[in-house]
Amino acid sequence: MTLWGGRFSEPTDDDLRRLNDSLPYDRRMALQDIAGSIAYARALEAAGVLTADEASQIVAALQNIRGEFETETFVYRPGDEDIHTAVERRLVELVGPAGGKLHTGRSRNDQVATDFRLWVIDAIDRISGHVEQLQVALTGQAEAHLHTVMPGYTHLQPAQPITAGHWLMSYFWMLARDRERLADARRRTAVSPLGAGALAGTPLDIDRAALAQALNFPSCSQNSLDAVADRDFAAELLFALSLLGVHLSRFAEDVILYSNPAFGFITLSDRYSTGSSLMPQKRNADPMELTRGKAGRLIGRLTGLLTTLKGLPSGYNKDLQEDKEAVFDAVDTVTAILPVITAIVTTLQLNPERMRAALSDDMLATDLADYLVRKGLPFRQAHHVVGQAVREAAERGIGLAQLPLETLTALSPLFEADVVDVFDFDVSVSRRKAAGGTAPKAVAAQIEAARDWLERHRT
Amino acid sequence: MTLWGGRFSEPTDDDLRRLNDSLPYDRRMALQDIAGSIAYARALEAAGVLTADEASQIVAALQNIRGEFETETFVYRPGDEDIHTAVERRLVELVGPAGGKLHTGRSRNDQVATDFRLWVIDAIDRISGHVEQLQVALTGQAEAHLHTVMPGYTHLQPAQPITAGHWLMSYFWMLARDRERLADARRRTAVSPLGAGALAGTPLDIDRAALAQALNFPSCSQNSLDAVADRDFAAELLFALSLLGVHLSRFAEDVILYSNPAFGFITLSDRYSTGSSLMPQKRNADPMELTRGKAGRLIGRLTGLLTTLKGLPSGYNKDLQEDKEAVFDAVDTVTAILPVITAIVTTLQLNPERMRAALSDDMLATDLADYLVRKGLPFRQAHHVVGQAVREAAERGIGLAQLPLETLTALSPLFEADVVDVFDFDVSVSRRKAAGGTAPKAVAAQIEAARDWLERHRT
Amino acid sequence: MTLWGGRFSEPTDDDLRRLNDSLPYDRRMALQDIAGSIAYARALEAAGVLTADEASQIVAALQNIRGEFETETFVYRPGDEDIHTAVERRLVELVGPAGGKLHTGRSRNDQVATDFRLWVIDAIDRISGHVEQLQVALTGQAEAHLHTVMPGYTHLQPAQPITAGHWLMSYFWMLARDRERLADARRRTAVSPLGAGALAGTPLDIDRAALAQALNFPSCSQNSLDAVADRDFAAELLFALSLLGVHLSRFAEDVILYSNPAFGFITLSDRYSTGSSLMPQKRNADPMELTRGKAGRLIGRLTGLLTTLKGLPSGYNKDLQEDKEAVFDAVDTVTAILPVITAIVTTLQLNPERMRAALSDDMLATDLADYLVRKGLPFRQAHHVVGQAVREAAERGIGLAQLPLETLTALSPLFEADVVDVFDFDVSVSRRKAAGGTAPKAVAAQIEAARDWLERHRT
Amino acid sequence: MTLWGGRFSEPTDDDLRRLNDSLPYDRRMALQDIAGSIAYARALEAAGVLTADEASQIVAALQNIRGEFETETFVYRPGDEDIHTAVERRLVELVGPAGGKLHTGRSRNDQVATDFRLWVIDAIDRISGHVEQLQVALTGQAEAHLHTVMPGYTHLQPAQPITAGHWLMSYFWMLARDRERLADARRRTAVSPLGAGALAGTPLDIDRAALAQALNFPSCSQNSLDAVADRDFAAELLFALSLLGVHLSRFAEDVILYSNPAFGFITLSDRYSTGSSLMPQKRNADPMELTRGKAGRLIGRLTGLLTTLKGLPSGYNKDLQEDKEAVFDAVDTVTAILPVITAIVTTLQLNPERMRAALSDDMLATDLADYLVRKGLPFRQAHHVVGQAVREAAERGIGLAQLPLETLTALSPLFEADVVDVFDFDVSVSRRKAAGGTAPKAVAAQIEAARDWLERHRT
Repeated sequence: MTLWGGRFSEPTDDDLRRLNDSLPYDRRMALQDIAGSIAYARALEAAGVLTADEASQIVAALQNIRGEFETETFVYRPGDEDIHTAVERRLVELVGPAGGKLHTGRSRNDQVATDFRLWVIDAIDRISGHVEQLQVALTGQAEAHLHTVMPGYTHLQPAQPITAGHWLMSYFWMLARDRERLADARRRTAVSPLGAGALAGTPLDIDRAALAQALNFPSCSQNSLDAVADRDFAAELLFALSLLGVHLSRFAEDVILYSNPAFGFITLSDRYSTGSSLMPQKRNADPMELTRGKAGRLIGRLTGLLTTLKGLPSGYNKDLQEDKEAVFDAVDTVTAILPVITAIVTTLQLNPERMRAALSDDMLATDLADYLVRKGLPFRQAHHVVGQAVREAAERGIGLAQLPLETLTALSPLFEADVVDVFDFDVSVSRRKAAGGTAPKAVAAQIEAARDWLERHRT
Repeated sequence: MTLWGGRFSEPTDDDLRRLNDSLPYDRRMALQDIAGSIAYARALEAAGVLTADEASQIVAALQNIRGEFETETFVYRPGDEDIHTAVERRLVELVGPAGGKLHTGRSRNDQVATDFRLWVIDAIDRISGHVEQLQVALTGQAEAHLHTVMPGYTHLQPAQPITAGHWLMSYFWMLARDRERLADARRRTAVSPLGAGALAGTPLDIDRAALAQALNFPSCSQNSLDAVADRDFAAELLFALSLLGVHLSRFAEDVILYSNPAFGFITLSDRYSTGSSLMPQKRNADPMELTRGKAGRLIGRLTGLLTTLKGLPSGYNKDLQEDKEAVFDAVDTVTAILPVITAIVTTLQLNPERMRAALSDDMLATDLADYLVRKGLPFRQAHHVVGQAVREAAERGIGLAQLPLETLTALSPLFEADVVDVFDFDVSVSRRKAAGGTAPKAVAAQIEAARDWLERHRT
Repeated sequence: MTLWGGRFSEPTDDDLRRLNDSLPYDRRMALQDIAGSIAYARALEAAGVLTADEASQIVAALQNIRGEFETETFVYRPGDEDIHTAVERRLVELVGPAGGKLHTGRSRNDQVATDFRLWVIDAIDRISGHVEQLQVALTGQAEAHLHTVMPGYTHLQPAQPITAGHWLMSYFWMLARDRERLADARRRTAVSPLGAGALAGTPLDIDRAALAQALNFPSCSQNSLDAVADRDFAAELLFALSLLGVHLSRFAEDVILYSNPAFGFITLSDRYSTGSSLMPQKRNADPMELTRGKAGRLIGRLTGLLTTLKGLPSGYNKDLQEDKEAVFDAVDTVTAILPVITAIVTTLQLNPERMRAALSDDMLATDLADYLVRKGLPFRQAHHVVGQAVREAAERGIGLAQLPLETLTALSPLFEADVVDVFDFDVSVSRRKAAGGTAPKAVAAQIEAARDWLERHRT
Repeated sequence: MTLWGGRFSEPTDDDLRRLNDSLPYDRRMALQDIAGSIAYARALEAAGVLTADEASQIVAALQNIRGEFETETFVYRPGDEDIHTAVERRLVELVGPAGGKLHTGRSRNDQVATDFRLWVIDAIDRISGHVEQLQVALTGQAEAHLHTVMPGYTHLQPAQPITAGHWLMSYFWMLARDRERLADARRRTAVSPLGAGALAGTPLDIDRAALAQALNFPSCSQNSLDAVADRDFAAELLFALSLLGVHLSRFAEDVILYSNPAFGFITLSDRYSTGSSLMPQKRNADPMELTRGKAGRLIGRLTGLLTTLKGLPSGYNKDLQEDKEAVFDAVDTVTAILPVITAIVTTLQLNPERMRAALSDDMLATDLADYLVRKGLPFRQAHHVVGQAVREAAERGIGLAQLPLETLTALSPLFEADVVDVFDFDVSVSRRKAAGGTAPKAVAAQIEAARDWLERHRT
């Protein structure tokens, strides 16, 4: 059964049917389709298109059908080209021709847009919840490592000592922005297109605002032509997930690096490692590599949908059918990754002694320059003096702290015996206590701010 | 001059310098760099690093340098590797070694992030203003064509009659979402990274919140490691511009189609058309084609930056230098397109008689089905009956309205003489008067809502 | 069962397993996996690792397993993490511990690369065959329309008359390039990685060249580290399919436009059109819209894989597991589209009278300029004169051919009474008979060249 | 001056001109434009459109203009909208109205396609030359490190010992494929579109094959409509450069990792390192990070062009003007990177003792399993036994080689005293001597094959 056969003298080609049918994937929207239809039946009743009896009959049948989906007893028929056809076909089976009244004034164009938006809203809420759990896990680990000092890198070269808690919390705030973007996307998704018809609006006396409310949409679309073809919300979700994917890929890169034995900062539990079919000793951080790799997939899905949308003429075009597989795949991808990463963070074993062993005097060069600044030298000159000291030490093959005082004083008379106090990693870290800094005190405040943020963003 | 020479025994290779130097493009951030440095000088004064005298001297010199940029008299030197180096070099020329104190506790990492955010905020405001003007132009044209009836398309096939004002307003709401996305991006851009140092935060007693305020940032970053490497705001702007570009590409497609003589709905003014070097008769809608084409460029820039960000380890990595050319190019692209499109919309000549001539009885098939529904037939059956009528008319090579009544009644006894009233395009349009519909009355209300929206979103 | 459990003290987490397992999609490579293993068993025999008996036993068992796949009776077990594990597990069930010898010196890294390359080669051959059929269909239709004159467009504005056969053949050559690119990609795919081990090569005395031959690979990889991580061939296939998708999207755009009634150049058969759930009259070119839309999906898959590959360190990384779903999806997409387009081209009904009706005098403006050139006027001036004539006609609201001779002579004295001969579309077309031109004669030659090309590129 | 003013009653809008004009970037094709015009003038002469005198005059003037470009004395005028207009304008200045004959039968559509293809061919040759130099540099370094043993990684975890020469050569073969792809792209670029006119072919009696030869194109396009709109060659170049960029990004990642002090395998020379404005000790591998980052830019350019091409209707559309900036930028990017990477490879200092220090017994686990295989144990069981040994050693906190023999024999009675011979990294490496393996002998053969390859692919 199709919903549109009357005008046609020949049946659709089989290859085309296979290409055209969206049931294999849009069946995921069954519950949303039914919710939309129930609300629409009530709106038709209010508009006088359905009698109270007809409406109740239709609603009851739709609830039955929902039950069939929930118990996985719904039976698809060969002619069901999409989930909407399947549900309407079943409805007519249950209530007879009166079921054919449900589509009055409605088009698949506004129907599918409604269903998809409902699905996306659910997906955003689920994903935001997963991200929240990861944020909680990061905060917990960070708190446990307020005082664990490790090398901080820029350009992947040792830069300055930082605390491990600070490193972990840096991901908290990326995820916070991700959740804000998801919330913004949700707000623009929660706009009801129902009542837009195929493109021109409905000729029925439907209260679209009330219909929107019934579906928990705070507002409804302002222009029917835009409403049926707007897939901004899908693109926006794909973008938010791409950037989330990028953040996770960066965390993955860190974990992969830090669990290489040359670093040894991190040990992944056996439960989150995998081995090799050839090399018996291997313990690989597979989930982190998959996470890193899947960022590409997410970006590809975003690119794909934007490219599909580019240059389409006004109104609904079938090209838009590409929206769902892209979004479903991106949502599934992120949903599969997040709980694993959260578990990894929760069970992450940090190795403070390996971290400390990786610190070198060099990383206090900036502190050494600050020492000269405190003695009155302009920073730019202090930087130059210390640069020469570093070079001198490197050429001698010794650490910066091993340079004899007279070597230092030869470079600048401002160096004095108290310079030895500079070479203390804990002191260095604790000095960066301004807001957002790496000092344990500042990180403790940061964690408090993070918990406030979580409180204000409960899913 | 570089800012970092002391540690090195050999000069940088020339090819590398060319690759590395960002001055050719980051000079666009000169004013932002100076603004950031002025605020930072005052913060250093408050922190006791600079005396009041030193601070005033530095600020005055920076204001001088700003004057040089504004009058385009600033002279770059061969050693200026980026705009920050250039400004600091000039500062030291003007105030002597004390100028070297300005970089105390500051890194190019937090400095460049600050400058870039300031630049992006300005760009967002300018672009939002351009979009606003396009929205105003669309609203004006829409109001002039409340009653102009044209074919509405889905799948680029004639679907239902709509009003030209409705068609034009559909773009208004796409642009409204674009401006909301720009505003969301702006909010996340307006977070001050200054004081994050290279990665670990500042050891100075700097009031970062006050420093942020001085630069009109409502808040400051919570984690220094995140602050120096966060380019979410750049990606978010590129996404917002990509989706804006997609919307403009769709409008372009419509205008290109509608100005093809087979449609003839639109005539572009000579001022916005171009000709052919070979074919003397050509009048091409070049600006619309460029607009459509440049959507690809924008999407490419977004993809490019996301790909660059993927998989980077913690902290600042030089890869991030790719952010600026991508953003500058996207901003320039959009800035070049928007005024032209606005002018085209403003001067657009719609040809109502060509639009009306393109309407066909077929496009009232849904109205005909609605007629049967009003007589009691369930919609799905009415659809089937009318489908057969359409097929019958097509096979006879006549319009749907030309079908004799007896043919119709043979299909359904519900057809009666009053069926002729269905075949009126103006009536069809005016029936779609529910919120968001194409009826002149509904479009007038839509325009009013649009003007409210504009009022609430003044740039 | 995993292939790597010995080193681990805890079982893998369930969420991770789900994320990690590739069986849901890599089972498509079952036959390739078996083919690779059979060849490898023989190579192990030649290297003295397996006895002749063991090898024969293993090969026989693998052939049995192949039968199970072919008859769809193969039973997967819960522990089968990927197709390689599944096959090896089954092998051991059939031949006992000796089955465990098959993996000697082999890693999943070289195994999966081998399987995937074999699969890609098959896919390329199948797709190339589908494209060939489309080329044949285009050639057939073109031949039937050697003399059908239609408007040729640039900038979608009427430019010059062309023949419909010429228009159709333009797609032939795009597809020819696509097949050349596929062949180039195939050549670079057909390089055997087997024997590269995990990364370092094999310690066994394996004749890699002979092993490659046994699998129909003309050559084998030169560097084991490259061999296990090289996914260029996958990216190259995705690129070739993306560009193929772009070409099909352009054809789709043409067909969609030309079947809009304002053009009416084309009528799609009912078998390849679909209708609307709301509007009974609709006949939409859905398959062409899907084709156009899916170009975005293909480009997204390409972008996704390239992004995944970017920045990976040396050797195999698990990120590479993303290669297969991307390639499978792109291959499936193209495979679903091509037969439908071929059928559409074959059954395409062109409407020559609508095409001719869309021709206008303007489109002969270049011919008119050529007329002046033949009388001695430099082309640039002739272009200007004719431009003025076009404008004059447009302002009077008449066709170019309707301009009185005196108006023309006022613009240039070179115009004479014989100018009327210019206004003949068939003559215009027939004059463009140089190689590659639109004249029927030239198109006939073009079709001959196309048939030669097809002959030289039989799949 | 435009080439198309006659038909227009109003001048072009200034904003549109700025948007439309391509001179700011297409001036790079000046020499190609002149070469194309010289060949075309001779073809017009042969076709009888120009007299021998006119042709010689025009050719001489064009040579003059070429001289002006070469000496950078060419003066652009405000009306020059693109390079083609500029050259034609100058030509008319030099030879008078006869210059206006050069455009007879030619359109900017075939002209720009010709110029651009000539430019791309040059670019491919230059880039291929740069890649060749990098291949030579890699081969040289590899030869110097045939016997340097280092850890080989999979999943960035220590896997097996390899030789540094093998690691370096792995990049040689990636680049070889890149050059093959460039050569394939070049072959498809070297097809002459000249004579295709605007879309329909030329009405003149031009020998297109001879014209193609004059420009060193081996063949000419078969269909004029395809010829003017085909940008496959641009997309193909962008793809080849993207994949080249991916390969360079992987090398960059390795170098960045290996120059981190935790690895310390590599020291970059001061000439190819840069410092920090804040941290005096920093020596960053900036060029490698830029290289890694720019892979994103290249991929973005590819995506951008493909997206621009998607869905365009037949014939030339102005959207295609986006092709050049994308290609120019990608070519410039690669051209800036390659010489720096070549210099870095040439001056790369490998630290063999750090490499050797990073080797651990674990990395011989596969060799240990092979030992058991040689004693008759099926590999899969040997793998399991050794996995248990690795775990045992890890739990005791000792190396695999430190496990007492009795512990081993408890796991498998096949272990005997000769097991100690397994623990030799040089022996392990030398055993992988089959083709493509890491043994010094195999790598020496590999280098020989590489030199053969280079010989066969001289630029």
